[in-house]
Amino acid sequence: MEQTKILLEESDMPKQWYNIAADMPNPVQATLHPVTKQPVGPDDLAPLFPMQLILQEVSRDRWIDIPEDIQAIYRLWRPSPLMRASRFEKVLGTPAKIYFKYEGVSPAGSHKPNTAVAQAYYNKMEGVKRITTETGAGQWGSALSLACNFFNIECKVYMVKVSYNQKPYRRSMMQTWGASVVASPSDQTQAGRKILAQNPDSSGSLGIAISEAVEDAATHDDTKYSLGSVLNHVLMHQTIIGLEAKKQFEKVGDFPDIVIGCVGGGSNFAGVSFPFLYDKIHGKDIRVIAVEPTACPTLTRGPFAYDFGDSIGLAPIVPMHTLGHSFVPPPIHAGGLRYHGMAPAVSQLFKDKLIEAQAYHQLEVFDAAVLFSRTEGILPAPETAHAIKSVIVEALKAKEEGVEKTILFNFSGHGHFDMSAYDAYFSKKLTDYSLPESEIQRALEDIKDMPKPK
Amino acid sequence: MEQTKILLEESDMPKQWYNIAADMPNPVQATLHPVTKQPVGPDDLAPLFPMQLILQEVSRDRWIDIPEDIQAIYRLWRPSPLMRASRFEKVLGTPAKIYFKYEGVSPAGSHKPNTAVAQAYYNKMEGVKRITTETGAGQWGSALSLACNFFNIECKVYMVKVSYNQKPYRRSMMQTWGASVVASPSDQTQAGRKILAQNPDSSGSLGIAISEAVEDAATHDDTKYSLGSVLNHVLMHQTIIGLEAKKQFEKVGDFPDIVIGCVGGGSNFAGVSFPFLYDKIHGKDIRVIAVEPTACPTLTRGPFAYDFGDSIGLAPIVPMHTLGHSFVPPPIHAGGLRYHGMAPAVSQLFKDKLIEAQAYHQLEVFDAAVLFSRTEGILPAPETAHAIKSVIVEALKAKEEGVEKTILFNFSGHGHFDMSAYDAYFSKKLTDYSLPESEIQRALEDIKDMPKPK
Repeated sequence: MEQTKILLEESDMPKQWYNIAADMPNPVQATLHPVTKQPVGPDDLAPLFPMQLILQEVSRDRWIDIPEDIQAIYRLWRPSPLMRASRFEKVLGTPAKIYFKYEGVSPAGSHKPNTAVAQAYYNKMEGVKRITTETGAGQWGSALSLACNFFNIECKVYMVKVSYNQKPYRRSMMQTWGASVVASPSDQTQAGRKILAQNPDSSGSLGIAISEAVEDAATHDDTKYSLGSVLNHVLMHQTIIGLEAKKQFEKVGDFPDIVIGCVGGGSNFAGVSFPFLYDKIHGKDIRVIAVEPTACPTLTRGPFAYDFGDSIGLAPIVPMHTLGHSFVPPPIHAGGLRYHGMAPAVSQLFKDKLIEAQAYHQLEVFDAAVLFSRTEGILPAPETAHAIKSVIVEALKAKEEGVEKTILFNFSGHGHFDMSAYDAYFSKKLTDYSLPESEIQRALEDIKDMPKPK
Repeated sequence: MEQTKILLEESDMPKQWYNIAADMPNPVQATLHPVTKQPVGPDDLAPLFPMQLILQEVSRDRWIDIPEDIQAIYRLWRPSPLMRASRFEKVLGTPAKIYFKYEGVSPAGSHKPNTAVAQAYYNKMEGVKRITTETGAGQWGSALSLACNFFNIECKVYMVKVSYNQKPYRRSMMQTWGASVVASPSDQTQAGRKILAQNPDSSGSLGIAISEAVEDAATHDDTKYSLGSVLNHVLMHQTIIGLEAKKQFEKVGDFPDIVIGCVGGGSNFAGVSFPFLYDKIHGKDIRVIAVEPTACPTLTRGPFAYDFGDSIGLAPIVPMHTLGHSFVPPPIHAGGLRYHGMAPAVSQLFKDKLIEAQAYHQLEVFDAAVLFSRTEGILPAPETAHAIKSVIVEALKAKEEGVEKTILFNFSGHGHFDMSAYDAYFSKKLTDYSLPESEIQRALEDIKDMPKPK
């Protein structure tokens, strides 16, 4: 009998997160103030984040304890299973062994609650009554709604208007968990009203929604803001994925040669890979691959530069691979990968050649998703499907070379709320997008007056 | 640390299904031919079902081996977790311990693949190339699509037209797994064409879809028909749920005093409860509760009688609790519970007072679903929410009586494809339905010329 799921008992769940800052050969460079362009200190961030999270953001401690109240909620779905995709291996005819960490088991259906629960907890500890955030397709918004609900914190989600109207089911999910969801641009903030005055029919953007959520938090005493990716502490909360995977590999006496994750802001990729990068940094021969869409090729084509974290220029300036803050990604269905920048930690590791990057087109990504669904059953989210495409490429390469590789990828979320994308695929309405060279010129224009990172 | 999930290793997954026919004090009474009204034999069923399933249908063997090829697919998601709902207990303030078996972990999101995979396997073994079925909201159709895909069998799903148009995502799911889905009534069968000739705008019904699927199978040599509930062998395939649960309770040294499941055709209820009914029949003091909607109160208000399994009178006549084959259930959102009849085995056990039945209104059921989501995180399907409502009632009764009961319920499926129902609930568009007494008179009229069961 071949084992399909490698499970961990709850008592074996890791009790600490892994902070890669302790091991990076070159640290993440300073975050700068959006106006002064000088390095920011904890106090600059205090209006937006609770102090414990700010301290985690700048910590160099390798291990940070996971409070028991967070663990208790993690246990509703964690440890998540490590799955052996034997049927997928067979259909590819590869000698490679393919494993995936299945993060779709969380109530919100993705890895996002790993940090949402932690963030809600630290806010609660500091007496925060209300948290604001933005959401595009809704995966992050629903994770934060779930988390706030557990800690009895009010949650206000600014949801990009086009998604609010087109994806009512993620919205309903957030409401079920008690969040209040408003279409952005809204008339509830200055930023929103300004946009609406210019264009009453604006369908919104993630950049606008961020501005609304940040303004709301900054102008209400009892309110903080929460971000679902990019920041160091967010990535760190996700490392429970890779830490569990290591224990699971130990159980079956295996270890990955290749670790793969899709990247938008970088959090699920960091979650699965950072604990393995520890081994790579300490001499182990592992390849770590970040997979992005050709429509938003931040690592593969964007320069490493200081740029705004948001589109409007209100958020801090961070050193990262970026397509420029004015970049509007084409409307691919992997909404979670449509971000102009990349987590500074992921960007630095890429710069230091500790990780590789690959970019794939939308159609080949959906081909991969359907092949996977038809062999393993589970329907991947379009974001996850990018990782699967890379797995196919690497598994076929192993076949060609006749070598038995062990591949691990992060199955960041299921596609139950993305079926309209599958619909579009089957009815041949999906197209590929390649970024014209002019977009790279525009990106360089965006960053030309910024300080230069090392 | 309180344990949340009680897991089983794959090697501990039961290797046999439990056939309650071996232990029922009174057996299920004979199935009759829809035209001759005489008992049917295996040969009468052979055009529709493979012989192995027909033999299972009439078997009295207590244990039936699960072939390794079926187990291998079960292992993609089974054993499913047994979860302790501690947070839910706390919010109810009950001394009762509440456990649930989480069947939403299957790729199709419900318990349905437990039988779909078995049925596809036995069809494959007998050389069947193509399987037809009907589906309403799509839960059964997607489970069978998934199963046929694994065994490389063509799958044709007749989907009630109103759902086909209103629930495109379940349809996309079936297509992703390679099934062909057609809106019923269709122009592809005589039955469909007949209905369309009378009413080109017919929005369809489960009864019509069954007729189309049955006709398609009966008129194609390489094609069989598959049903997702009601029949003995279908219920038996689901007993893996309860058998796993028993092993999981053993692991934590507990055993349920009350076992609860929602009932439409009866399969998920049978799956969780039959293995525990074995203990009850052999003297153990357990209550077993079947929960139905007040809008379709088959057990609580329908007579026990011989009636057609379908709405049109083409399907075999079975002895069961029924609201009459002409009954059209009100449009409640728990589509899987909108069936005029009840599995003969469940009906006989109810007649023999081995199980109880409760009926609840739609609004209190959604209240229960939201309370559950906000404490345990997972969003239940509207069908599952009926079981949850009963759990609340029983847990509060235990609180009142001050006794510590152990309650087990079957979490038959998640609600990711039912968010429009939650939407309707939050926007106050849901209503309750009570069956007027005239409907019971109509039911009695439906069955008045039928033979009488003992």
